[in-house]
Amino acid sequence: MKRTVGDIGEFGMIQRIRDLLGTPSERVFVGIGDDAAVLEPSGKALVVTTDMLLEDVHFRLDWIGPADLGYKSIAVNVSDIAAMGGKPLAAFVSIALRPNTLVSFVDDLYEGAMEACSKFGLDIAGGDTSRGRKTVIGVTVVGEADKALVRKRSDAKPGDSIFVTGALGASAGGLRILEGDVPDYAVDEAKALIAAHRRPIPRIDAAVAAAGAGCRAIEDISDGLAAELAHIAEASQVGVRIRAESIPLAAGVREAAAFLGEDPVDFALHGGEDYELVLTAPAEAVSGILNAVEKTGVILTEIGEIISERSLLISEGGKESRLEAAGYSHF
Amino acid sequence: MKRTVGDIGEFGMIQRIRDLLGTPSERVFVGIGDDAAVLEPSGKALVVTTDMLLEDVHFRLDWIGPADLGYKSIAVNVSDIAAMGGKPLAAFVSIALRPNTLVSFVDDLYEGAMEACSKFGLDIAGGDTSRGRKTVIGVTVVGEADKALVRKRSDAKPGDSIFVTGALGASAGGLRILEGDVPDYAVDEAKALIAAHRRPIPRIDAAVAAAGAGCRAIEDISDGLAAELAHIAEASQVGVRIRAESIPLAAGVREAAAFLGEDPVDFALHGGEDYELVLTAPAEAVSGILNAVEKTGVILTEIGEIISERSLLISEGGKESRLEAAGYSHF
Repeated sequence: MKRTVGDIGEFGMIQRIRDLLGTPSERVFVGIGDDAAVLEPSGKALVVTTDMLLEDVHFRLDWIGPADLGYKSIAVNVSDIAAMGGKPLAAFVSIALRPNTLVSFVDDLYEGAMEACSKFGLDIAGGDTSRGRKTVIGVTVVGEADKALVRKRSDAKPGDSIFVTGALGASAGGLRILEGDVPDYAVDEAKALIAAHRRPIPRIDAAVAAAGAGCRAIEDISDGLAAELAHIAEASQVGVRIRAESIPLAAGVREAAAFLGEDPVDFALHGGEDYELVLTAPAEAVSGILNAVEKTGVILTEIGEIISERSLLISEGGKESRLEAAGYSHF
Repeated sequence: MKRTVGDIGEFGMIQRIRDLLGTPSERVFVGIGDDAAVLEPSGKALVVTTDMLLEDVHFRLDWIGPADLGYKSIAVNVSDIAAMGGKPLAAFVSIALRPNTLVSFVDDLYEGAMEACSKFGLDIAGGDTSRGRKTVIGVTVVGEADKALVRKRSDAKPGDSIFVTGALGASAGGLRILEGDVPDYAVDEAKALIAAHRRPIPRIDAAVAAAGAGCRAIEDISDGLAAELAHIAEASQVGVRIRAESIPLAAGVREAAAFLGEDPVDFALHGGEDYELVLTAPAEAVSGILNAVEKTGVILTEIGEIISERSLLISEGGKESRLEAAGYSHF
């Protein structure tokens, strides 16, 4: 018979999670099982981000399995640390679970989370478990940064070039396939798009490299490129002008959009969850940034520029129009 | 007409929270409104704790109002930082809210949280908001500690005296009054008991003073004295022997217990949520610890000793029996 978390109880769960997590790295001086975790002093600035993922609001368990969910809950927070020019140190994972949740679900969730932690160089150093009516996952990631490399969304200046890492729209494409709007046989790269949705790769090294080479604002693309550009524009009190044709689209996005009769560029602008970076760079730093980021194995593409006029503009086929920045609102 | 969070939307909520929180202290280099918060380097060990509070699991809104809930969600995490010998620096508050939640509820919640932060010397430096079916509050508190003052639950040694700060059982007494089990006219100190349940005071200075004067294990009493002693005993591979008559009971606890026909000592042993400290001290450090803690305005009471035999024992009226350590299980 399959056991549930109700069968083994809270203390059974905590013990199981401790066993799963094993021994953390040496920088975790006190890990799970005390009142709080203690990490060795780093002497650097502390970067902290937190995210709460609720079942049926942020994820649906028929579209994402527990291992991917665990992985993604870590990756999206690591991406926020990267967007500040930081590197992740430790994750703190709180979960609320229905009593009828299978123990194997929790095992898979933590295995996915640990896989992400191992890939991105951080430890799971603490957390909290409790009963809930729906699954809730709260993740806090603590990281460190050289204070000189911290990059804020308010750092953009008119004349800066705007770059994005990698290719965009993959996560939105994957979601549309998972939702059943696009059949997977209609897109050659269906698997890659779904993987991009479930297991995004935060651009830690690229962000640190770009910051070190003198880039200005950095954002990770969680809410869609348009929303992130709007954040930068508002915080920096500037505007943006981008070219639709320059936006790098992930392989398969055009096919998915064609099937739906939609504009593929909208997948990049409004789809969200790509967890690539958008950054701005003054002219004198551009070649250095391109070099430094290229060494991390990540492609940078110039898509436009920061302007002093406080407008969000996009050109397509020689015609310029206002870029709609509507992000996703949770209420 | 009263506005709800659904009316003003997620971005309206975030703006409102930013306005409420105002400008944080100088150690917050980047606060709310960017991808992650950045705190100035402290050079000390980092202490991190996190807690997720779910409506109808951890709190019921008919027993605690939003201001008290905000206050308490900060205080209980600060208490965990204190129990490690640390001081709090910054809180990160994530909330999930039903769309029909009144905006005034959120205002009150953050005002209570800010009151606690101002009282205990930390900033709210970040967080997350989203929609939910029930209210969920996730709080992470980041603090710092001199590594030499970090106190683990595994640090107790046979022969140590066991002390508690303040008086116990107040929170459980307050809860029983709120639940309607005890009418408030039956207890002179009803208001104080309810206040202890809603607005616990973490013992930050007392913990640092005790650690500095050479105490060994420290725990904050969140799950009841018996459960905390069991944690210490298990982690330190020791036992405990305490005297029921020595346990300091908060004023009003005896009256509440008398009304219910229950043993008042059980309020201290199993009630939980007192957020006082239990600590162990080697003989040579006792007088120094008493002196140092007294200077913080907190009373320490000796209640027993750590023994090498791995048993949990309690004496009452000259008779010794096993101390039942059953803590609260969330599943």
